[in-house]
Amino acid sequence: MTTSPLTHFDAEGQAHMVDVGNKSETARRAVATGRIVMQAATLAMIRDGHSKKGDVLGIARIAAIQGSKRTSELIPLCHPIPLTRVAVAFRIDEGNHAIECEVTAETVGRTGVEMEALTAASVALLTIYDMAKATDRGMCIEAVRLLEKEGGKSGHWKAD
Amino acid sequence: MTTSPLTHFDAEGQAHMVDVGNKSETARRAVATGRIVMQAATLAMIRDGHSKKGDVLGIARIAAIQGSKRTSELIPLCHPIPLTRVAVAFRIDEGNHAIECEVTAETVGRTGVEMEALTAASVALLTIYDMAKATDRGMCIEAVRLLEKEGGKSGHWKAD
Amino acid sequence: MTTSPLTHFDAEGQAHMVDVGNKSETARRAVATGRIVMQAATLAMIRDGHSKKGDVLGIARIAAIQGSKRTSELIPLCHPIPLTRVAVAFRIDEGNHAIECEVTAETVGRTGVEMEALTAASVALLTIYDMAKATDRGMCIEAVRLLEKEGGKSGHWKAD
Amino acid sequence: MTTSPLTHFDAEGQAHMVDVGNKSETARRAVATGRIVMQAATLAMIRDGHSKKGDVLGIARIAAIQGSKRTSELIPLCHPIPLTRVAVAFRIDEGNHAIECEVTAETVGRTGVEMEALTAASVALLTIYDMAKATDRGMCIEAVRLLEKEGGKSGHWKAD
Amino acid sequence: MTTSPLTHFDAEGQAHMVDVGNKSETARRAVATGRIVMQAATLAMIRDGHSKKGDVLGIARIAAIQGSKRTSELIPLCHPIPLTRVAVAFRIDEGNHAIECEVTAETVGRTGVEMEALTAASVALLTIYDMAKATDRGMCIEAVRLLEKEGGKSGHWKAD
Amino acid sequence: MTTSPLTHFDAEGQAHMVDVGNKSETARRAVATGRIVMQAATLAMIRDGHSKKGDVLGIARIAAIQGSKRTSELIPLCHPIPLTRVAVAFRIDEGNHAIECEVTAETVGRTGVEMEALTAASVALLTIYDMAKATDRGMCIEAVRLLEKEGGKSGHWKAD
Repeated sequence: MTTSPLTHFDAEGQAHMVDVGNKSETARRAVATGRIVMQAATLAMIRDGHSKKGDVLGIARIAAIQGSKRTSELIPLCHPIPLTRVAVAFRIDEGNHAIECEVTAETVGRTGVEMEALTAASVALLTIYDMAKATDRGMCIEAVRLLEKEGGKSGHWKAD
Repeated sequence: MTTSPLTHFDAEGQAHMVDVGNKSETARRAVATGRIVMQAATLAMIRDGHSKKGDVLGIARIAAIQGSKRTSELIPLCHPIPLTRVAVAFRIDEGNHAIECEVTAETVGRTGVEMEALTAASVALLTIYDMAKATDRGMCIEAVRLLEKEGGKSGHWKAD
Repeated sequence: MTTSPLTHFDAEGQAHMVDVGNKSETARRAVATGRIVMQAATLAMIRDGHSKKGDVLGIARIAAIQGSKRTSELIPLCHPIPLTRVAVAFRIDEGNHAIECEVTAETVGRTGVEMEALTAASVALLTIYDMAKATDRGMCIEAVRLLEKEGGKSGHWKAD
Repeated sequence: MTTSPLTHFDAEGQAHMVDVGNKSETARRAVATGRIVMQAATLAMIRDGHSKKGDVLGIARIAAIQGSKRTSELIPLCHPIPLTRVAVAFRIDEGNHAIECEVTAETVGRTGVEMEALTAASVALLTIYDMAKATDRGMCIEAVRLLEKEGGKSGHWKAD
Repeated sequence: MTTSPLTHFDAEGQAHMVDVGNKSETARRAVATGRIVMQAATLAMIRDGHSKKGDVLGIARIAAIQGSKRTSELIPLCHPIPLTRVAVAFRIDEGNHAIECEVTAETVGRTGVEMEALTAASVALLTIYDMAKATDRGMCIEAVRLLEKEGGKSGHWKAD
Repeated sequence: MTTSPLTHFDAEGQAHMVDVGNKSETARRAVATGRIVMQAATLAMIRDGHSKKGDVLGIARIAAIQGSKRTSELIPLCHPIPLTRVAVAFRIDEGNHAIECEVTAETVGRTGVEMEALTAASVALLTIYDMAKATDRGMCIEAVRLLEKEGGKSGHWKAD
């Protein structure tokens, strides 16, 4: 095979924003996830934040939604995409002292929204880090990955 | 203790950008890391890219540096910080089919640059994902965390 | 009724960017207005600016147009929208020592442009404040509101 | 007097970003306010949002803080300023069916932060509008103005 | 003829973002070019950069692509446009000690992408200047212009 | 000599944002210029615009000032710099059917503002192109270069 499967490069190996002008506008959806692992005490503080000390997850959710809209500014070869829906869910995993974040992004467009979902999840987790770092610098972001992708020529894909 | 250790919230639990006006301007440095795990074939493609098929890591490095400058736009309660240095190193980990990214950020300012280093590392890894996703959607970003932090009142901190 | 009329929140009260993927692309238009009240001498200076001392309103108009394009970055749950027209008109209200700003925004899209028109009007008035604040810090922005809205399922709406 | 008091223009009436290089770096503070007037039912919905249906004011607060950091991008002749503190308070005014927003912005710099405080207040109020507009399009933003300003050569100023 | 051919102004001479809502969405393409002239030694350094000392042109290419996506933020009356393709080619002109940059931009939209191509070319050349300025401050950017334009009502245009 | 004079690359040829943390904060100034050449009729239209048909140069001036503030977002390895002054002058060159733009940028900081001045000049000229392109697509941007630079270790530099 002579063509590189790295589609972001042309035949000479030069980066480009690949042509999606001939692709049809279809409904596209991507789901990404990731989690941040922390000390048990940090997790307790964040969980309690919902009631009275400060809503860490509410702020991380807004940061994720706003971050999804900046994806094409952050990821050099991403196309600008008019997102039609972004939803962010958090799940507290007491057993592993972790907070899991799941982002669903949707558009009706010529290319997929995987990067928008992944970027939003990353920004959510970084925002949680920022808000709790004064007490727990050792927090660790793990398992940021695509869960599912629908729409477009490549069809439905699900992570194992 | 009556004050929440979540310093991004005031006594009523309302988020604010905390006052750093009284902190002195000192040299500050932060080092963050993270890695992206992929199939062996994907890693081979990216590694070869350095020679002729397209420079994935060179592009991810630029994305990381540019991303570091957008940190305060992405992370809601971060202060805008005039970075004085950003350096990004990649290490190919053949054994684990992974690429490791390490970012060093520096400033002379009133608050630390941990978030700048962590954001840059995340953007680098997301950019690698973007450029290789056409062949390997299952790539996974792991272990994004702070390695070291210097400067300011809290002094030198190193991850275990 | 069990659903909140606050459509920006889901059933659990979590914020999301609401799904507009099923809405059809139609021509949409919104008109917003607002005014800034000032001292008589300040108004005279700005009015004269058109001829020789500096074009305050010309600059405010450009700021408004540029601001309209940043709406989805500023307002967290707004969808990114490809504006097809933005026009900004100023009217000097001598009797009340005020400058009135009216913005018309249009798109062909899946959701309305009310926020784009309102944001543009706000940025125009803030820009006027900025340019005249050295002599009149007490200026006051008043009556920023929607005048009219057309297109989409909810049809034509006009303020009383 | 031959010089225009519109300091954003030079002797020929051309706009410029005025020279602040000779001003000393001092602690500066500005307080701005504004309010949004709505139907009684809308106010009740937003007030209840704090408990379970969706935290409108929490989101508006984050939007305000993020907006304050974009001020020099929105207001053409503003200098970029490294904010050292931003705080946003809301007060529910049941009698007038209004929500009042007060923003305090601070820096240690060469020029004041009035525009940062005013921009943040405007963005907070616009965000409230956005989140409640589905049920109350007639909401009106009123009385966006500077309350107080400290620091720099012009000293302390308070609105009447 | 009473209408100004400066279409960005209305009948009263006020700037506006012109209405493109009635134009049809068609495939559009623009090609722009420009070059930067430098000392022979500077050109040699950049050319060698491809192999081992640093990839100036690779970085300029990424800057160009990212810059193209910011066009409507930089050029006040430009419409936001969802680019579907951006490609950047460099040619080393040994005879004139120059590097030539050619950018092709494409969209399927209601207005052309000339400004996106020209902005990308400018950003590429400015980035080259930035990276080599430590040794050659006298470099000069020349001949930034449109080469070709296709699509839309005005049809195909080519520079002489 | 073993070190590359391309200071934006480290010893291994990897791009970085170079360390300026040890440089002292001094007053710095840069002057850049450039021009756009057009048909005689286009120049006449723009020149007349000052009086009644639309103020092309006033808008280009604002675009230049706003563009100067985005320099570090556009040019990958530029440091973020708090500009303390930006001034933009235009000169109509009837003989050559050209408009010349000269930008002066200043800061008190750790690194120079050449790129800010050059970026502003480029954005000004691109904005003129945008506003007149409907009648003159063949306009050409020429001679964008640094005229002068002061401050910092390298001292005063002037173009020949």
